[in-house]
Amino acid sequence: MTRQVLFSDPELHSELRYFEMAAGGFSSLERHQHMHAVLILRGRGHCLVGGEVKPIDTRDLVTVPPMTWHQFRASKGEPLGFLCMVNAERDKPQLPTAEDVARLRKNPAIAAFLDDKS
Amino acid sequence: MTRQVLFSDPELHSELRYFEMAAGGFSSLERHQHMHAVLILRGRGHCLVGGEVKPIDTRDLVTVPPMTWHQFRASKGEPLGFLCMVNAERDKPQLPTAEDVARLRKNPAIAAFLDDKS
Repeated sequence: MTRQVLFSDPELHSELRYFEMAAGGFSSLERHQHMHAVLILRGRGHCLVGGEVKPIDTRDLVTVPPMTWHQFRASKGEPLGFLCMVNAERDKPQLPTAEDVARLRKNPAIAAFLDDKS
Repeated sequence: MTRQVLFSDPELHSELRYFEMAAGGFSSLERHQHMHAVLILRGRGHCLVGGEVKPIDTRDLVTVPPMTWHQFRASKGEPLGFLCMVNAERDKPQLPTAEDVARLRKNPAIAAFLDDKS
């Protein structure tokens, strides 16, 4: 996955970043207090946001609320690129424990997503 | 010109908006203390930022610093669409006085831009 910071400035209270992952690629599964505001710019795939797996396509908007497990996964066919706006002052992402993953996997749709079978 | 607020939330310190103007259309000439962070998503044209007129094209980034006169103008051929990130808490835009415009027009490139001859 590549990450480009498009805008970051002391006068701006947020940053705008562009992420791109290769076909079949995925972001890390994580959560944090700060929100993500995501706009899909190219490709398609699926994302896990909280208790739900959703298809995503170019021009879709995705909001990741505070402390919500999330992961983005590109389709097999093409790269997935998206913009992500975040507060400039923000906490560090938390990674899931084995217990967190086990809890998430109780939902069959989430288990399929984590196993790349969405 | 159309304006869509894509993201605005109490948890987010900035807003992300999408603006689109028809071929030949333009935004208002204004300035303000808050910055603009702009990403051109479709089309092309020119923008005035401070003392300079620049061509803009899809995927270009434009930063408008504080208290800087700025205006965006679409090419004659197609609509111009761009994302604009701004601080959620921000001041109101100021419009130019006749004196401000006269001062800007002393620069021939800016006069041509204002007369839609860029």
